[in-house]
Amino acid sequence: MPSTPRATATGHEKEIDMSAPCCEPMLMVILGGTGDLSHRMILPALYRLAQQGRLDSKSQIVAAGRRALPDEEFRKHAMQAIRREVADISADAASSFARNLHYRQLQEPYAEYMTGFGSQIAELEQQCGLPGNRIFYLALPQDAFAPAAQAIGEAGLANSRGWTRIVVEKPFGHDLRSAQALNALLHRYFNEPQIFRIDHYLGKETVQNLLVLRLANPIFETLWNRDRIESVQITVSETLGVESRAAFYESAGALRDMVQNHLTQLLCLIAMEAPGSFGAEAIRDEKVKVLRSVTPISSASALFGQYQRGYIDGEPVVGYREDAGVAPDSNTETFVALRLGIENWRWQGVPFYLRVGKRMARRLSQIVIQFRRPPVMIFEAFEGCDVHSNALTITLQPDEGFNLCFEVKEPGQDIAVRSQRLHFQYAEAFGPLPTAYETLLLDIMKGDQTLFVRADWLEQSWRLYAPLLESPPQLKHYPSGSWGPEAAKDILYPDHGHWLPS
Amino acid sequence: MPSTPRATATGHEKEIDMSAPCCEPMLMVILGGTGDLSHRMILPALYRLAQQGRLDSKSQIVAAGRRALPDEEFRKHAMQAIRREVADISADAASSFARNLHYRQLQEPYAEYMTGFGSQIAELEQQCGLPGNRIFYLALPQDAFAPAAQAIGEAGLANSRGWTRIVVEKPFGHDLRSAQALNALLHRYFNEPQIFRIDHYLGKETVQNLLVLRLANPIFETLWNRDRIESVQITVSETLGVESRAAFYESAGALRDMVQNHLTQLLCLIAMEAPGSFGAEAIRDEKVKVLRSVTPISSASALFGQYQRGYIDGEPVVGYREDAGVAPDSNTETFVALRLGIENWRWQGVPFYLRVGKRMARRLSQIVIQFRRPPVMIFEAFEGCDVHSNALTITLQPDEGFNLCFEVKEPGQDIAVRSQRLHFQYAEAFGPLPTAYETLLLDIMKGDQTLFVRADWLEQSWRLYAPLLESPPQLKHYPSGSWGPEAAKDILYPDHGHWLPS
Repeated sequence: MPSTPRATATGHEKEIDMSAPCCEPMLMVILGGTGDLSHRMILPALYRLAQQGRLDSKSQIVAAGRRALPDEEFRKHAMQAIRREVADISADAASSFARNLHYRQLQEPYAEYMTGFGSQIAELEQQCGLPGNRIFYLALPQDAFAPAAQAIGEAGLANSRGWTRIVVEKPFGHDLRSAQALNALLHRYFNEPQIFRIDHYLGKETVQNLLVLRLANPIFETLWNRDRIESVQITVSETLGVESRAAFYESAGALRDMVQNHLTQLLCLIAMEAPGSFGAEAIRDEKVKVLRSVTPISSASALFGQYQRGYIDGEPVVGYREDAGVAPDSNTETFVALRLGIENWRWQGVPFYLRVGKRMARRLSQIVIQFRRPPVMIFEAFEGCDVHSNALTITLQPDEGFNLCFEVKEPGQDIAVRSQRLHFQYAEAFGPLPTAYETLLLDIMKGDQTLFVRADWLEQSWRLYAPLLESPPQLKHYPSGSWGPEAAKDILYPDHGHWLPS
Repeated sequence: MPSTPRATATGHEKEIDMSAPCCEPMLMVILGGTGDLSHRMILPALYRLAQQGRLDSKSQIVAAGRRALPDEEFRKHAMQAIRREVADISADAASSFARNLHYRQLQEPYAEYMTGFGSQIAELEQQCGLPGNRIFYLALPQDAFAPAAQAIGEAGLANSRGWTRIVVEKPFGHDLRSAQALNALLHRYFNEPQIFRIDHYLGKETVQNLLVLRLANPIFETLWNRDRIESVQITVSETLGVESRAAFYESAGALRDMVQNHLTQLLCLIAMEAPGSFGAEAIRDEKVKVLRSVTPISSASALFGQYQRGYIDGEPVVGYREDAGVAPDSNTETFVALRLGIENWRWQGVPFYLRVGKRMARRLSQIVIQFRRPPVMIFEAFEGCDVHSNALTITLQPDEGFNLCFEVKEPGQDIAVRSQRLHFQYAEAFGPLPTAYETLLLDIMKGDQTLFVRADWLEQSWRLYAPLLESPPQLKHYPSGSWGPEAAKDILYPDHGHWLPS
């Protein structure tokens, strides 16, 4: 729940004070606290927030794990992990942060041990004079989500003297039915405003900026519709292969791993109507509305791919079926290309092209808004005047920022038109950016759900992709280091050029 | 007349081939060929064109002046003048250019000596095997325009075996009546397509780019109307005072010297409808239409100013009335601020603010398109979210280019919106630009009148300013080195901020 409610300008919704320098004191439990996610992401982000003075100095962090481990040893490992991720550590901040780190053993089955664990954290709260605000962060393998949440609920820990929040990482379900089941379980113990489903893409600055870019700039919002936009392309490409995740990936594939969550969130932010306020519910309502307007995906508008041998940065790499832990006849997709239509007043007839892949030519996440060509091209009578359409390219990685591509007259006595790019890069303008986890953890502590996935959105998204999961399109192969299968170009309408880049 | 007619894409108008590498051979007469304009602008520009291979090697340039001067001596002076202006002179190009330079004495009254002069140039044409294409460039004081043009016409030189064109510099008339008289005189001997009235502002790259920017970029043209634009500001400021031009300036003033021609041309390029083709007549038709829609200027929407003592770049300078050649009680305006309304579908209700001045804080020519604010400001509930309107700032000097000012989310965990500028500078993107005179001279040789002032536009512009010339607004004084009189701010509507810059 918002910590310091106040009315927005439009008055419809309670709003939190986002400029509060520091959050209320709380206790955060990280289930799976000695795991990879905790060490690489959660603890470094918490440390950065502490160093910025965003974390109340009374707040305590309790890592929970199966084995026995003295506090001191956990602290040592945790601070080592933090030092690997954070360059500018101050000795003072580090030592006061370490003092607030704890380790508690929590054996499985959780159902058996959670009540005792609850007593331990209550004791710690009392020692530290905390008001009972609690966050349970499930940094666990997906099959532990349900037992952990159920144990927390059954132990009476879903509510406390202060507020209690629960954080769930992806993958949130495997399909519509499993997502619904997990939601139902959570809702048995927690209200939706207590549940924070993380999609770390939403914590990226450029993603957050999408709404500011659209709604604080009439020059863009004026253009943001079917009259002016010809198509939208969203590409998320990695050069990495399946790496150590084969066990998970074999049963997931790119559609579940990337499209259903990250790319569909980006789609919603680009396509949504202007919300009535900048509050979490207003924004999340609009995002669900987008999904409800997406037309069913036919197999003709989808393509799956799987990488074969090839070269990444000049080095030979093996194909997916040769990767450790992958079945030699696996048909799991490592590439997806999709064409989506949104049947509403704003977007009817404008295709949204989504593309995601592993072992691609380059690591890149970008959104290309391709504007329509001028209705009349009065310069085309002149040589050298091949006028291109304007395009706004929003890059999420590796460099967060955007390019506006437009036409100018080339200097000189002849009439020649040339494309130029207006370039904006976040890091150039503002210096280093906060990591997505800093943003998201702070929002959890504040109780701001704007950047988190709501239950109905999640289910609607699974519903959208259900037909593809049930009868996947034929699998095409592509060499590692390429931009995916050749046939991906057939997903684009013939007059919509090519995938950008390709 | 166009040298190599061909149809445009739209087919309505004959069009010239602007990519022709070199112009037809011709003979150019510069009346006033030993004067300042000839030495500083015309000859260096012709040299640059020759060096680029734009000038046919058979073309001859004949400077005409009152005194006797051997060809060799004129060549020496001319090449010295060219060396002062052009850095990268090639020895070969210089010697072959110099060979085509000539000097012929032409005494006054022109009426008496023009026939003989005509025989001399015909003889030169014959010697050089020229086809009779001729340009008469009147680089003369304004009171010599009419006698010179009349003498040319009466001597039968308005037509030749090839084409004949006449070039007239500003000031073209002193008011509506004198402009009409000069037009009538010219039209007695020349057709309008033979007459090239120079406004050197129109030769600047950024000015030419205005139409490309609008008509090749739907992202801009979509915004280009009363629904999206709140106001337009056009500022041309100089730090120079009246310098050596007091005799002329005392009887002219800033309205005649700058507003009636340069600023009004810029206004027309910003405000005009999209022409049916990129041909000279289509564009010039639309420019005249703009002027016909400008509402009469009331004295409440105009302000005149005159500079007093002050500081320019830290150095003390005297006031206008103390300048050499200026009457000690002169009421000549050195500053004008105006608010114009255009009563058509595109612009009704959008003020166009024009400002021009001498001895101002900075040398600057710029156009600011101020867009309307977002209708709803959903970010304003957050501290640090003072959303600014978007603005497109087009700079003509000192650096040709433009800025697009827009809002982004400031990185960080709070919602804060910051203005950022997307920046485009011609010289950065393309290197050094051609000078306006190169562009204009080449167009004259090609017979392309797009960038020249048509008779009806000229008369309409004088008609527009006639009320202000007849009963000028009260004169306000301003210190040198300022942005003009304080009262200039009252020309802006109260909710339209301030002059940019100020």
